[in-house]
Amino acid sequence: MQIMNYVPVADVLHGKAAVDTEVTVRGWIRTRRDSKAGISFLAIYDGSCFDPIQAVVPNELNNYQEEVLRLTTGCSVEVTGTVVESPGQGQAYELQATNVKVVGWVEDADTYPMAKTRHSIEYLREVAHLRPRTNVIGAVARVRNCLAQAIHRFYHEQGYFWVSAPLITASDAEGAGEMFRVSTLDMENLPRNDKGAVDYNEDFFGKETFLTVSGQLNAEAYACAISKVYTFGPTFRAENSNTSRHLAEFWMVEPEVAFAELDDVAKLAEDMLKFVFKAVLEERRDDLEFFAQRIDKEAISRLEKFVESDFAQVDYTDAIDILIKSGKKFEFPVEWGIDLASEHERFLAEEHFNAPVIVKNYPKDIKAFYMRLNDDGKTVAAMDVLAPGIGEIIGGAQREERLDVLDERMRAMNIDPEHMNWYRDLRRYGTVPHAGFGLGFERLVSYVTGMGNVRDVIPFPRTPRSANF
Amino acid sequence: MQIMNYVPVADVLHGKAAVDTEVTVRGWIRTRRDSKAGISFLAIYDGSCFDPIQAVVPNELNNYQEEVLRLTTGCSVEVTGTVVESPGQGQAYELQATNVKVVGWVEDADTYPMAKTRHSIEYLREVAHLRPRTNVIGAVARVRNCLAQAIHRFYHEQGYFWVSAPLITASDAEGAGEMFRVSTLDMENLPRNDKGAVDYNEDFFGKETFLTVSGQLNAEAYACAISKVYTFGPTFRAENSNTSRHLAEFWMVEPEVAFAELDDVAKLAEDMLKFVFKAVLEERRDDLEFFAQRIDKEAISRLEKFVESDFAQVDYTDAIDILIKSGKKFEFPVEWGIDLASEHERFLAEEHFNAPVIVKNYPKDIKAFYMRLNDDGKTVAAMDVLAPGIGEIIGGAQREERLDVLDERMRAMNIDPEHMNWYRDLRRYGTVPHAGFGLGFERLVSYVTGMGNVRDVIPFPRTPRSANF
Repeated sequence: MQIMNYVPVADVLHGKAAVDTEVTVRGWIRTRRDSKAGISFLAIYDGSCFDPIQAVVPNELNNYQEEVLRLTTGCSVEVTGTVVESPGQGQAYELQATNVKVVGWVEDADTYPMAKTRHSIEYLREVAHLRPRTNVIGAVARVRNCLAQAIHRFYHEQGYFWVSAPLITASDAEGAGEMFRVSTLDMENLPRNDKGAVDYNEDFFGKETFLTVSGQLNAEAYACAISKVYTFGPTFRAENSNTSRHLAEFWMVEPEVAFAELDDVAKLAEDMLKFVFKAVLEERRDDLEFFAQRIDKEAISRLEKFVESDFAQVDYTDAIDILIKSGKKFEFPVEWGIDLASEHERFLAEEHFNAPVIVKNYPKDIKAFYMRLNDDGKTVAAMDVLAPGIGEIIGGAQREERLDVLDERMRAMNIDPEHMNWYRDLRRYGTVPHAGFGLGFERLVSYVTGMGNVRDVIPFPRTPRSANF
Repeated sequence: MQIMNYVPVADVLHGKAAVDTEVTVRGWIRTRRDSKAGISFLAIYDGSCFDPIQAVVPNELNNYQEEVLRLTTGCSVEVTGTVVESPGQGQAYELQATNVKVVGWVEDADTYPMAKTRHSIEYLREVAHLRPRTNVIGAVARVRNCLAQAIHRFYHEQGYFWVSAPLITASDAEGAGEMFRVSTLDMENLPRNDKGAVDYNEDFFGKETFLTVSGQLNAEAYACAISKVYTFGPTFRAENSNTSRHLAEFWMVEPEVAFAELDDVAKLAEDMLKFVFKAVLEERRDDLEFFAQRIDKEAISRLEKFVESDFAQVDYTDAIDILIKSGKKFEFPVEWGIDLASEHERFLAEEHFNAPVIVKNYPKDIKAFYMRLNDDGKTVAAMDVLAPGIGEIIGGAQREERLDVLDERMRAMNIDPEHMNWYRDLRRYGTVPHAGFGLGFERLVSYVTGMGNVRDVIPFPRTPRSANF
């Protein structure tokens, strides 16, 4: 008989270990079931795929009485056995165990926080260090990884370079949200300057510093040098928002492209989303099936429909008309100039277009200073990608590449151009049309899995009054 | 004639656009040279590869006198032309230009900070927003991307899941270094509790929080659930170290593997380094050739030797013997119990073994509480990977999976086990041997490129008194 050494459970279940081969798997007990005939069935999970493998353990094993019959959910084991075709439902292969080695016991099965009864998703947040052991959070972790890998692969294959934007920043000009201060000053004994104010000259960086809200401005500097770049890193918002869509710390993907206009990045957004959704449909079918069964029955069909759909595109001004003419009662009244609320976005994507839709050219007054002013003088070349079932998933824009227009926009928004001299330099020296967008990675994972709260799609969520583990 | 639309310079130089095809490239002028015969030669760089493409511009073009002859380094252009085999040295293909469109001028060629004269690397740090336009920093950006992509690919292919460790943490137990405080308290008006101390209960997270120094402990929680994981994210040290090897903000790669012992991750480290070095040798030959020519003549040979070498392994105790018996005078005296200094590490890797070397089993007193105590009671299952030419590039360990030993180590190091209850839970419930390591990503990029200072291998370095852009 052929002997394979330690193998992932996924390899056995996917037929990569030939029948009659002896293999050893290592993982944690999900369940144990004993038959009256003196046989135990162990479900062993190692995280390599959604399903555990079943090991059939005969009572002839030395440690059957003393150990196997004491195994409970969460115990870690090494099980050696022969791969056989499974007569049972639900799995193609199982192991006929020849050896069961207990690696780690569970201290007290009755108080083990992850005992096999199903737990509420809220309870699981309280035990974020153990929740990856559950079906649901394990599946989230694999899908999250699959999406991240697909994002890197997509950009790499398209000739983009990953750049890391700085996390600590002295710039607060974008005004995209409240920021966290970063400091090493002694809080009990703050240094003061001669005016009595806190003396940040004494701080680590010699000035006030914060955690970044976006890597975009830094990415622009790289796009204006090597053409096609993207960031994929953490960003921060110190907003006291206790909603299912907000985290204080979250990951963003921000491509930035030189010699590109709004329509170019609209296409890039469509291509990217379809690419990563196809990847997860192909690579993580097992986890998606679980989500479709237990979390959101449209978890698979939504993605399948998405990758087949043609994106709609609509001007903001036309979208406002559509909303007004719909005759629908919205909580937030619709008129030209408003920022679209979630109810408006979802009406457009789910009812009117019944497809992903890109809304373009928003009123300048509700958008950031760096977005390119359109010839109408009223709107900017901004876009939002709205997806059926979630609303806004991507926000982007063509950037203002004309120095005089940029300066005027900054002054109108009370930003001192002098503070942005490095950013202005990109326009002073060989300026180019360029554009980019931002994708909130946790919203993407939430969309794919159907998990309703972004706190459950990041390993250790940071939210107001919560930074445990 | 066939017409291709916008193509990256790399595609033309690598022969992906057939001879006689008309293409348009877009980028920035590196140099302009005019011949007496009324022809100009433009070197156009777009970042897609190291080399610019040469466009041969005849004086028949409409805007030859008015625009082409005014082009200076840094101007952005769109050049359309026919691909031809280049008669000149140094490039296989060039463009016979039929149209030159100036997209963006340089405001004043004489004051352009990136004019074509060569700049000192220290000066370039002062203009970090423009330095990616230089040969050297552009090459760093491409190599950095190549290494990052290869790291993700390596782990993904080996069945590891990327997990994001939290950046903001309330835990300071590891004691790996000074930390940055994260806070939203009003510094000019700090809330006080009834004892007069700063009341962190009023802070955003309801307690004191800091920027993480390592994602390892969090990664352990995921390894103890889904077996094979890695982090790749930013970490922080608030150390006032103004050296060429320290950044306040840097990226770390931290794999963590369940059911693994020290030798397993020693092998993983070797496999990973060889994989990523092979990737950069294959994919970024152009940039490496530049580094070998201008920065470090061993930039290529060092990597080629590395990927062919067999790693040496030596116990710390034997390494100390080797150092003592070497008869060499070291600045820091050698005796059992010291932490190895850079001079010791480089002697081992460069002179004694003349190969990458993994030093294992260090004295427990110089290592962290979570490293697994060896049976000798004096050493722990820690390892450092030392590379010729740089010294320590990876540090790792098998983790202490035995709760009683872990608790004892924590008490000996004045860490209250109660503060680490979530980490202790991983040992209370189905504990498994597990191990991992940390790779400082900037040190890796520095090693590959030969760039002597880590400030030059991260886009926007953060160091004491410096957080610009």
